[in-house]
Amino acid sequence: MRMVTADEFNLAREVEYGSAEQNETVRRVVEAVRTQGDDALLRYTAEFDKVQLTTETLRVTDDEIQAAYDRVEPDFLEAIRAAAANIRSFHEKQKRGSWMDLQPDGTMLGQILRPLRRVGVYVPGGKAAYPSSVLMNVIPAQVAGVPEIVMATPPATGGREGIDPYILVAAAEAGVREMYRIGGAQAVAALAYGTATIAPVDKICGPGNIYVALAKRAVFGAVDIDSIAGPSEIAVLADDSAEPAYVAADLLSQAEHDEMASAILITPSAALAEAVAAEVERQLASLPREPIARASIERYGAIVRVASLEEGVALVNRLAPEHLEIMTAAPTELLGSIENAGAIFLGPYSSEPVGDYFAGPNHILPTNGTARFSSPVNVDDYMKKSSLIQYSKEALLRDGAHIMALARHEGLEGHARAIELRLEAERGN
Amino acid sequence: MRMVTADEFNLAREVEYGSAEQNETVRRVVEAVRTQGDDALLRYTAEFDKVQLTTETLRVTDDEIQAAYDRVEPDFLEAIRAAAANIRSFHEKQKRGSWMDLQPDGTMLGQILRPLRRVGVYVPGGKAAYPSSVLMNVIPAQVAGVPEIVMATPPATGGREGIDPYILVAAAEAGVREMYRIGGAQAVAALAYGTATIAPVDKICGPGNIYVALAKRAVFGAVDIDSIAGPSEIAVLADDSAEPAYVAADLLSQAEHDEMASAILITPSAALAEAVAAEVERQLASLPREPIARASIERYGAIVRVASLEEGVALVNRLAPEHLEIMTAAPTELLGSIENAGAIFLGPYSSEPVGDYFAGPNHILPTNGTARFSSPVNVDDYMKKSSLIQYSKEALLRDGAHIMALARHEGLEGHARAIELRLEAERGN
Repeated sequence: MRMVTADEFNLAREVEYGSAEQNETVRRVVEAVRTQGDDALLRYTAEFDKVQLTTETLRVTDDEIQAAYDRVEPDFLEAIRAAAANIRSFHEKQKRGSWMDLQPDGTMLGQILRPLRRVGVYVPGGKAAYPSSVLMNVIPAQVAGVPEIVMATPPATGGREGIDPYILVAAAEAGVREMYRIGGAQAVAALAYGTATIAPVDKICGPGNIYVALAKRAVFGAVDIDSIAGPSEIAVLADDSAEPAYVAADLLSQAEHDEMASAILITPSAALAEAVAAEVERQLASLPREPIARASIERYGAIVRVASLEEGVALVNRLAPEHLEIMTAAPTELLGSIENAGAIFLGPYSSEPVGDYFAGPNHILPTNGTARFSSPVNVDDYMKKSSLIQYSKEALLRDGAHIMALARHEGLEGHARAIELRLEAERGN
Repeated sequence: MRMVTADEFNLAREVEYGSAEQNETVRRVVEAVRTQGDDALLRYTAEFDKVQLTTETLRVTDDEIQAAYDRVEPDFLEAIRAAAANIRSFHEKQKRGSWMDLQPDGTMLGQILRPLRRVGVYVPGGKAAYPSSVLMNVIPAQVAGVPEIVMATPPATGGREGIDPYILVAAAEAGVREMYRIGGAQAVAALAYGTATIAPVDKICGPGNIYVALAKRAVFGAVDIDSIAGPSEIAVLADDSAEPAYVAADLLSQAEHDEMASAILITPSAALAEAVAAEVERQLASLPREPIARASIERYGAIVRVASLEEGVALVNRLAPEHLEIMTAAPTELLGSIENAGAIFLGPYSSEPVGDYFAGPNHILPTNGTARFSSPVNVDDYMKKSSLIQYSKEALLRDGAHIMALARHEGLEGHARAIELRLEAERGN
């Protein structure tokens, strides 16, 4: 791995926005599904997915879900159930209720929190079909109380027959009962605008290829969408106390994701830097996804030598990494100074895969520096707020003059009159 | 006002996305400021705002802020201070802290909440410069604990000299100390990317013209942005108990905003419908902004006759109005069935301007049906979350097999090995 100083280090990765042709395809598909509904949805499914469906076969049947359970291994089922329980437990702690503030004059102010009514979770086909991501997208919505959670996933990919049974089982375990075998931009459009067969949703979340990402962007406004994930990264902040093999393995677990992934060690220790570099080479050699991991390490990996842990923290805050591992003698002492990171893993046993799969916090995290201003997927993402104002007559009589002064200053006489009318009528009463 | 049934009623308004020429102008300006910094910022300020500034005069001085205080009327200052206190008090109740969950095996999971570090508030010039909106954008950020809140507003508009003193006073009262006389796409780009004079921010919020809206869209990703406001609307759900003059005045206070605004009465009462229609005509006649309000009422206003309050509630939920007033005999009885509304005003004294200016809840609300999935501006908008995972050795030894099973199922051997390595090393210890 290349070794650089903090000043030399610059993580710049390009984010893909799609070609003009891809944008045009998506525009055409979305518009067709919006205006022609099921006809267009079935037509594009035949064209892009090479599967001829009817409105009767769009939805996955309960029998198919049951059959999927028969096909997955018991250890997978046990693991996914244990993970789901942990994810549910963590997200339950995020949940907030409505509140109100009652004032002595009879005024009531408040904030009402409600779940979204209907959410669509997109699950990509092929090798990108991760059961863990199904849990991470669905469970927070379920904990929020969303009554209708629907899944869309391509009918078949990569020459395989039907939908991956592991995906069906993960979705069922997370609580999804309504699943459609649709994919791509046509699926996103069907979820956003609805068809005769599929009712429209209020929010679409979940990862997908460039067509899915562009389609989500296109329907945003008609529905909410989640953030569109950029390339993924890990920063490990470590000192002499860290075990080089652990650090190297964690860096590689990020690098094996894809060639755009970035794995960075930040350390004041020359000895650790050398040892991790050697371990990365050693472990790379036997990794099944070695070509991907090597490309990632070569292009976007680095060992950054810093003068001190303080300088390391400053670099972390500048990077705002998706994942941050702190493997130092006293990791909690640095926690207060970490301003920007999606998920923070403390100590030698908190390897990133613990969070990716199992501990409970969400693995869908802000990527590519956006942890400066955004957050892991959480229950709030599936809720909406309404303000509540019940002003009392006493309060209106008391505050009316201030309200009119502000309205008139802004040239909004109609606003002032809505108050004045009441003051005149109610003062006598 | 036109009278329709719920089935006949359809509120369709077009949202402006800008012409190709406007998009190209914004692209050029943003790119120039990003790459040339202050030089481009000053050049475009001279070109678009017709004001020649230097890097020394970009920032508003303390003396100018003091001078603004000397120019505003005492009743304005008193009203803005009272409003600010109410807004601060309401938003303080929204604030949440970090939490952690300590497990008996030594594992610690948690969610860390932090304010964004630096936020830019855009305030448009000219007639759209509303001191109340300055409070509504700034105070939630201040309550969130954002240490640096900067304001950008055009140096002069509509032939006026300098920045509106009411805006300066509102910003100062809300706690802003750093203000720049910059506007348009060049201001948005300067805030997003920073220049030698202006440090970059993490989020840009506040309304603006089409150039500002397009520039915010363009810089999104490099920074966060707030939602881009669409046309505004009010729905009043009322029965025979409502006072027609109040209903009409509240509808008009929305209609006077702009011609795209929509004001809708939903009622099962024929008598109220007739009386409100007559009152709207009567009150319109003497309204200073009568042409705007009349155009709004004619194009997007309606009185919708429903069979019952229940049907009315269903229509409200379909519309998802920005503002909802409920003026019925027992308004709180309907509250539980209202799913979608930005702000809900209950009873005869809760006229919309009470919320627009004074009560405390935010007046920046989801418009154009987006209350289905989005929320009033609130403290959460200026905070970010990080997940915290400190797994214990005991927990890793217990859960390691599950984690490896899930990783290997997903074909991510590197993930599995990061765990396996630790299990092998730690089991012996």
